[in-house]
Amino acid sequence: MAIRVAVGGASGYAGGELLRLLLAHPQVEIGALTAGGSAGSSLGEHHPNLVALSDRKLEETSTEVLAGHDVVFLALPHGHSTELAAELGDTVVIDCGADHRLEDPDDWQRWYGGRHPGSWPYGVPELPGARTKLRGAARIAVPGCFPTVVSLALAPAFAAHAVGPEAVVVAATGSSGAGRALKSHLLSAEVMGSASAYGVGGAHRHTPEMVQNLSAVAGERVKVSFTPVLAPMPRGILATCSAPLRDDVDAHRVRESYLAAYADEPFVHVLDEGQWPQTSATIGANTVQLQVTVDVDAGRVVAVGAEDNLTKGTAGGAVQCMNLALDLPEETGLPLSGVAP
Amino acid sequence: MAIRVAVGGASGYAGGELLRLLLAHPQVEIGALTAGGSAGSSLGEHHPNLVALSDRKLEETSTEVLAGHDVVFLALPHGHSTELAAELGDTVVIDCGADHRLEDPDDWQRWYGGRHPGSWPYGVPELPGARTKLRGAARIAVPGCFPTVVSLALAPAFAAHAVGPEAVVVAATGSSGAGRALKSHLLSAEVMGSASAYGVGGAHRHTPEMVQNLSAVAGERVKVSFTPVLAPMPRGILATCSAPLRDDVDAHRVRESYLAAYADEPFVHVLDEGQWPQTSATIGANTVQLQVTVDVDAGRVVAVGAEDNLTKGTAGGAVQCMNLALDLPEETGLPLSGVAP
Amino acid sequence: MAIRVAVGGASGYAGGELLRLLLAHPQVEIGALTAGGSAGSSLGEHHPNLVALSDRKLEETSTEVLAGHDVVFLALPHGHSTELAAELGDTVVIDCGADHRLEDPDDWQRWYGGRHPGSWPYGVPELPGARTKLRGAARIAVPGCFPTVVSLALAPAFAAHAVGPEAVVVAATGSSGAGRALKSHLLSAEVMGSASAYGVGGAHRHTPEMVQNLSAVAGERVKVSFTPVLAPMPRGILATCSAPLRDDVDAHRVRESYLAAYADEPFVHVLDEGQWPQTSATIGANTVQLQVTVDVDAGRVVAVGAEDNLTKGTAGGAVQCMNLALDLPEETGLPLSGVAP
Amino acid sequence: MAIRVAVGGASGYAGGELLRLLLAHPQVEIGALTAGGSAGSSLGEHHPNLVALSDRKLEETSTEVLAGHDVVFLALPHGHSTELAAELGDTVVIDCGADHRLEDPDDWQRWYGGRHPGSWPYGVPELPGARTKLRGAARIAVPGCFPTVVSLALAPAFAAHAVGPEAVVVAATGSSGAGRALKSHLLSAEVMGSASAYGVGGAHRHTPEMVQNLSAVAGERVKVSFTPVLAPMPRGILATCSAPLRDDVDAHRVRESYLAAYADEPFVHVLDEGQWPQTSATIGANTVQLQVTVDVDAGRVVAVGAEDNLTKGTAGGAVQCMNLALDLPEETGLPLSGVAP
Repeated sequence: MAIRVAVGGASGYAGGELLRLLLAHPQVEIGALTAGGSAGSSLGEHHPNLVALSDRKLEETSTEVLAGHDVVFLALPHGHSTELAAELGDTVVIDCGADHRLEDPDDWQRWYGGRHPGSWPYGVPELPGARTKLRGAARIAVPGCFPTVVSLALAPAFAAHAVGPEAVVVAATGSSGAGRALKSHLLSAEVMGSASAYGVGGAHRHTPEMVQNLSAVAGERVKVSFTPVLAPMPRGILATCSAPLRDDVDAHRVRESYLAAYADEPFVHVLDEGQWPQTSATIGANTVQLQVTVDVDAGRVVAVGAEDNLTKGTAGGAVQCMNLALDLPEETGLPLSGVAP
Repeated sequence: MAIRVAVGGASGYAGGELLRLLLAHPQVEIGALTAGGSAGSSLGEHHPNLVALSDRKLEETSTEVLAGHDVVFLALPHGHSTELAAELGDTVVIDCGADHRLEDPDDWQRWYGGRHPGSWPYGVPELPGARTKLRGAARIAVPGCFPTVVSLALAPAFAAHAVGPEAVVVAATGSSGAGRALKSHLLSAEVMGSASAYGVGGAHRHTPEMVQNLSAVAGERVKVSFTPVLAPMPRGILATCSAPLRDDVDAHRVRESYLAAYADEPFVHVLDEGQWPQTSATIGANTVQLQVTVDVDAGRVVAVGAEDNLTKGTAGGAVQCMNLALDLPEETGLPLSGVAP
Repeated sequence: MAIRVAVGGASGYAGGELLRLLLAHPQVEIGALTAGGSAGSSLGEHHPNLVALSDRKLEETSTEVLAGHDVVFLALPHGHSTELAAELGDTVVIDCGADHRLEDPDDWQRWYGGRHPGSWPYGVPELPGARTKLRGAARIAVPGCFPTVVSLALAPAFAAHAVGPEAVVVAATGSSGAGRALKSHLLSAEVMGSASAYGVGGAHRHTPEMVQNLSAVAGERVKVSFTPVLAPMPRGILATCSAPLRDDVDAHRVRESYLAAYADEPFVHVLDEGQWPQTSATIGANTVQLQVTVDVDAGRVVAVGAEDNLTKGTAGGAVQCMNLALDLPEETGLPLSGVAP
Repeated sequence: MAIRVAVGGASGYAGGELLRLLLAHPQVEIGALTAGGSAGSSLGEHHPNLVALSDRKLEETSTEVLAGHDVVFLALPHGHSTELAAELGDTVVIDCGADHRLEDPDDWQRWYGGRHPGSWPYGVPELPGARTKLRGAARIAVPGCFPTVVSLALAPAFAAHAVGPEAVVVAATGSSGAGRALKSHLLSAEVMGSASAYGVGGAHRHTPEMVQNLSAVAGERVKVSFTPVLAPMPRGILATCSAPLRDDVDAHRVRESYLAAYADEPFVHVLDEGQWPQTSATIGANTVQLQVTVDVDAGRVVAVGAEDNLTKGTAGGAVQCMNLALDLPEETGLPLSGVAP
């Protein structure tokens, strides 16, 4: 029997990617599509790539419209999902927004302000202990695009106690990660042919998610210095992550910890030695590509991860979580092959 | 029962795209993969995006290796498929090279030189009369990437006798269309941030295919002035095509001819009025997006078509042809939704 | 003695490029800089590349502010220059807007609406007869970015009566040509990796300029079918232009007409045979690169031109006109070498 | 009197950029141009942007050809400059290759192999103590493109003893930094739309230069973890650099050290607070843009620097050094304004 799915916030990039993936999911039937300011328009005006849905009308985002589905994905600005979810009862609600990612009320207060809406199971199944909480869950918080790949790139090193609790992360991202809002620094003439840093000095809101994830894995508080870099590409994140190697650890043990951690993970690929991740290999796919090495001179483990920010980093991760929530095979409907070159 | 498929020339861009699509085809089992200079290496070295096949070894291209499959795709430089196919008997052979596209021996002699290898059914099912010849065919010639979209963009106008026999086509293409050979003008620093014309003045080998296709549709010899433009993008063709409007024809009739021609075609989408094709909407999908209008002042029909040169323009068109050859539903395994943005 | 120059509309792309060039002009002293909504802000917020002017404040655009300079460049939306110029007396006014480009009041009415503001000397010195009108002129209309390169690419063929009066032009442009206004289709995630057509069917406002220029050269009314294509690059126009070859003309005569027309022009380079223009070679330079050939099969002359839309296509052409207006050597302060790769 | 300048290795990207800058230098007369495999061809075949030199022939690189100039720039693979320079006597030799950058013979042995060719004055005038050695020098080693911007981005923090001796650097670079050699991973279809890491784990040869420069400034051995990232742009480096903040230092003091260090430097711009560097602002210009902040949570100083790898990172830095060597004003002929957008 078909799983009936609604998407709240269908006109944005995350909403479009959700629909691209859901169209390819063998058990899904696409129900209501909602939007804010774009309600009333056709989906084809926003996503000309989704030809099978081009005539579908966008409705106003409301619990009335979203109710009556088996699953509701929310791809809304933060601040909306708690109220909507409260009235959606048994429906599985998968929130691509930030509202339920942070466990610590103080973190929420500091980074987003206001009363903590509470945390939901965190949607990176490949992190230690995460899959169990996601299987059968009725509410799931999809992580930020950066924390997904960064957490996966560093977790094995922390889990193996191979590194000290001070990570440095610089991640180049395609501009779809900034969403579809009209901002002058996102104009194509500004972005093409240029790289720029933003949110420098620990100012990016994805930082506390990384700290939360890595601290949980490490069993101690991990400091994360995170700098996002806007790169001239539409999709993709390349995260360069490092942490100080502990004295008693060697490169072999580090690599083994990565191979062991992801040996059975369909969506995380530790590359052969000598190969390094490139984002193009992951475009449109629900995969993360990883490589790790030790810089002996600098005394650091360096791990590099690549993902598509919209797929594994958002919508693909969300569909993977839906499969877990509904107890379907986790890989159902999710592409493994990136669209490259 | 699985269809066993081999790919000759798997290390190039066309070969990689064939494998990406074949991996998603529900009835295909991927058999031998061959290459020229890259024989002996792993597929993952050439296509890190194809994680499910990363450990597969490339073999030497030979009839021995290619024999014993239900279908063989050839993505080789021209000049190799005739001999290989001669020994492949009942195997369906789908040639992505140029060898069997041109019907006129003089055309072959002029554009490629040497003895005409004969023509095979031409792999654009949406052209008038083409589908019948492809259904059940044992040998199929996949067209060039430009002729696919250009022929589809102009065929309805010629079929409706709405235009005179003098087309002008300028088509921007992504650089994967030039293949993977090492040429200095294809280095990224040369291509990024730049547009350039090449093969100007009727020198591109895809020109006679366009002439052949459009003349057949028009019922008279059509002249085609074709200029390819290298654009700074990895994939995609945007073809701007025009021809002189006949005196007794109006814009409405032109548009109707397009709507009628493609009403039942799953892979050709005539956009709503006011919307114009963009290549991003077709990336990775087996679709062509079309729009047509009349420039009253200039007295010309102007049609614009977008496709992914590697998908509908090569590998997707090839798989579509395989489906026809094997009498499978034509859309089997082929993505409709482009990966955008 | 220094030439004191003001720029109205300094916060946009044309204004920024004017300032970049004026900073390198040995006789120019930069005076008032004005803006609309950005008045009050620092230039460095809009043009971080102009480090020498980063602290300069933008003032409101008004005749009071612009008065008292030797030269005023206007880089404003159309509709503002007539009134401003009326009060600027002896000041040389060089308008990068559309207001005074069209000679025919009916054309103005049709394409822009309202009362014809009259035409000023048209700022492409290399067109037949143009330089004389520009030398010493007090008012100059800088052409649109497309008409500059298209007119230069086709003028010799029309002047030599080598072609019939029916041109077809398809021109790929970088997205800075669309200006800095916030429009969703100009977001970087939409533009990167994609090509798209717009203004198709003769709808682009630069068309009547091309008709005007080429008709003047040809001595008869020339029809122009013009299609602009948005390409994923920040700057540059590559124009592919063709027209039907007259029966009594051969390729040699066509080429000779181009070589003769531009033999003494410092900013127009007819490339050696076999070389084709690429926009990267013109980035930041006040040059047009041209090549021409004859497509014998199609019976057309095909000319390809490249320029930087912001430099020779707008601001560089404007400074070249200033040099003529002030009777300075025409090349003063203008870069010949493009920034490539 | 004109300064007569030769360029050895004129067909590559560094050679082309040298010539673009030298053409704009008011006192330079361009003499011999040499190449390796391209000797005999015209410069225009390699650098169509340099229209003023398009007919100049490339000669074989030899001391005979290079002799008799006031200045010789060498833009050759490493290993050639020592022998050439030995026979060039009083000629100022400015080497863009690696041969004379490293002071420690063991470093040379480890990173390049063979006998240490000795070190020459190191061409980053803005580093403490460097300018004195460059003024009047007869031999100068131009640094690698990464070390220039990285050293300038971190030097003030180390000089002020604000940070501990463990830097982490991740730098995105345009692909011209990899030169013009034909390598498959540099094909445009591979690079466009993708980011990838290389030389990870301390394997990039520019690392020892950074260690050398920063250790000299810090007065103690500094460890540098350096990861270069290939970004889809032709030019530009964006370096994100961090180091652990010392306990007794605050953000204000860090910022003051940067402002003081570069207050009088024409080519190094510390941006206003709130503004972050973008590579586009530096394209074609001899400038470095810097910003610095403190990440209190992570306990690190984070400095970001942008430059054009070919201009300030190579050829512009080289011309700046020539000006010093010849006791010309240091800024002579060097552009300050980047070509943006």
